[in-house]
Amino acid sequence: MGEFDLIARYFTRPTRRVALGVGDDCALLQPAPGMQLAISSDMLVEGRHFFPDVDPFTLGHKALAVNLSDLAACGARPLAFTLALALPRTDAAWLEPFSRGLFSLADAHDCELVGGDTTQGPLNICITVFGEVPRGQALLRSGAQVGDDIYVSGTLGDARLALEAMRGTVALPADVSADLLAPARQRLEQPTPRIALGLALRGIATAAIDVSDGLLGDLGHILKQSSVGATVDTDIAITLVASRAYDSGAKGLFGTEITPNQWLGWALAGGDDYELLFTAPASARETVAAAARASQTPVTRIGQIDRARGLRLVNGQGQAVPNIYTSFDHFA
Amino acid sequence: MGEFDLIARYFTRPTRRVALGVGDDCALLQPAPGMQLAISSDMLVEGRHFFPDVDPFTLGHKALAVNLSDLAACGARPLAFTLALALPRTDAAWLEPFSRGLFSLADAHDCELVGGDTTQGPLNICITVFGEVPRGQALLRSGAQVGDDIYVSGTLGDARLALEAMRGTVALPADVSADLLAPARQRLEQPTPRIALGLALRGIATAAIDVSDGLLGDLGHILKQSSVGATVDTDIAITLVASRAYDSGAKGLFGTEITPNQWLGWALAGGDDYELLFTAPASARETVAAAARASQTPVTRIGQIDRARGLRLVNGQGQAVPNIYTSFDHFA
Repeated sequence: MGEFDLIARYFTRPTRRVALGVGDDCALLQPAPGMQLAISSDMLVEGRHFFPDVDPFTLGHKALAVNLSDLAACGARPLAFTLALALPRTDAAWLEPFSRGLFSLADAHDCELVGGDTTQGPLNICITVFGEVPRGQALLRSGAQVGDDIYVSGTLGDARLALEAMRGTVALPADVSADLLAPARQRLEQPTPRIALGLALRGIATAAIDVSDGLLGDLGHILKQSSVGATVDTDIAITLVASRAYDSGAKGLFGTEITPNQWLGWALAGGDDYELLFTAPASARETVAAAARASQTPVTRIGQIDRARGLRLVNGQGQAVPNIYTSFDHFA
Repeated sequence: MGEFDLIARYFTRPTRRVALGVGDDCALLQPAPGMQLAISSDMLVEGRHFFPDVDPFTLGHKALAVNLSDLAACGARPLAFTLALALPRTDAAWLEPFSRGLFSLADAHDCELVGGDTTQGPLNICITVFGEVPRGQALLRSGAQVGDDIYVSGTLGDARLALEAMRGTVALPADVSADLLAPARQRLEQPTPRIALGLALRGIATAAIDVSDGLLGDLGHILKQSSVGATVDTDIAITLVASRAYDSGAKGLFGTEITPNQWLGWALAGGDDYELLFTAPASARETVAAAARASQTPVTRIGQIDRARGLRLVNGQGQAVPNIYTSFDHFA
């Protein structure tokens, strides 16, 4: 199978809304009047972002999901994406499920594949995604205000638990392993981009970001770009690890039970969560709750924005908790 | 140097025209009223698209140039681009010249870097480029008409000659080697995207494509999408290899002089030319010549579009020439 057959077989479908899709030098997009185009690009590398033996269907899902998550964090509605793919070889047994996983999520968000590139090389997936947002309404990282509440959607840290279990650094007790690992692995391999919540938060959230490197690290971007500080409640954060309900007897690397610090670390700096972290005025608590209900996405208030710079962790009794948690850095 | 330091140091500059650039979840673009956004994406892989020891300055240039070439083929004016980069390590001695080469070409075309991604992995450069074109005026592959002239800009085959010389499959005579190799290598490593010509051809060319895989293969895309055939004059095509002026005594792989067939093969199927191949009505010859002059880009008429499907090669005497030339396919 040659390059053009591969594109025709797995990656070409009739265009629905865009002016011109796969098969010319460029795709053509026509944003509606008054709309800005939101653009984001993410690259996934074998061995770095996914295991070599990962199910290609879930990989197709995840490659698009991490990009859609960026649109969600801007409050943008998905429109289209390009896919550039380096493959060691053309392998129908891989391409078929990969493209199915990709299009399955794309169709769920009415997001069209409009172009891209294929080449031979070490497996690398680069997607650039396009969404639209009314001019001036995009959720930015720079809008957090002193006194704002800090919220996070869904759950945290479960993707990291799955990663550690798959790497063998955590041993799960046999009687809960299946119950615990299956949903955690689903979180790692098929994250849910919070598009509906992002759209519902337009005009409500003052700042937003998606949690990809870890809650505290990504909150740090909001704090820096908004020139503010924050306090986060660790007793609330630790409850956001869904897997913790099963933790009795789970063992860490040295055979000892996983400590509360470890669970908290995964909540605060686990990475690969793809939840929305956002701020909103305390006066908007009812509106935020309504947006969460309307988008069928749970949100939890985990702290507030302070005038004093820096990030403080406190427990439920207001006592300071040392911040020993570092986010993921691809070159650290 | 961490991931965010790297982005800040080498890839963040103040935005000029776009609504929001590097540093948030998404970039924001606002196309002017009546404009369509032209989008193209190309991925360059070490060992496949460039030698591991290539000068990073020229690599930065080329990575953007091959994308701008796609905009040129659509008659689009460059606006912005995203860069996703997988790097084995953070290496200032590589990143500094790479980013200089990239921005040098970007600035020449007033094209802003608006976002992207960096990660660790085998060297891979994925650029997605955005241009604008008035609605309905994009040059497509599908518009060639029976009787149209076929033109190509600039020169052909010199990039391929440089590639073969660098691979050692061609030996150049010592007395002409420097004169021949330097400009040919320039063509391989720093191709010139034909943006000005693409803009000048709006409303004149009936179809266009950029020559990246080889003239005949890329012409094949126009023929297929326009449902027409073509005849190409090989005596004209061979004159488009600039290096041929120096060919006396150049030796091929087996020590024999390079044959006319070899030179012709590089012209017709060399690859990496990044010239524009386009069609226009015979009645538009004066207008095409004026567009070429206005854009300071030489163009040569090399054949015409036929009703009879398929691609025919003929020499200057109108005699059939067998088509033994195949274009580059990444998976062939």
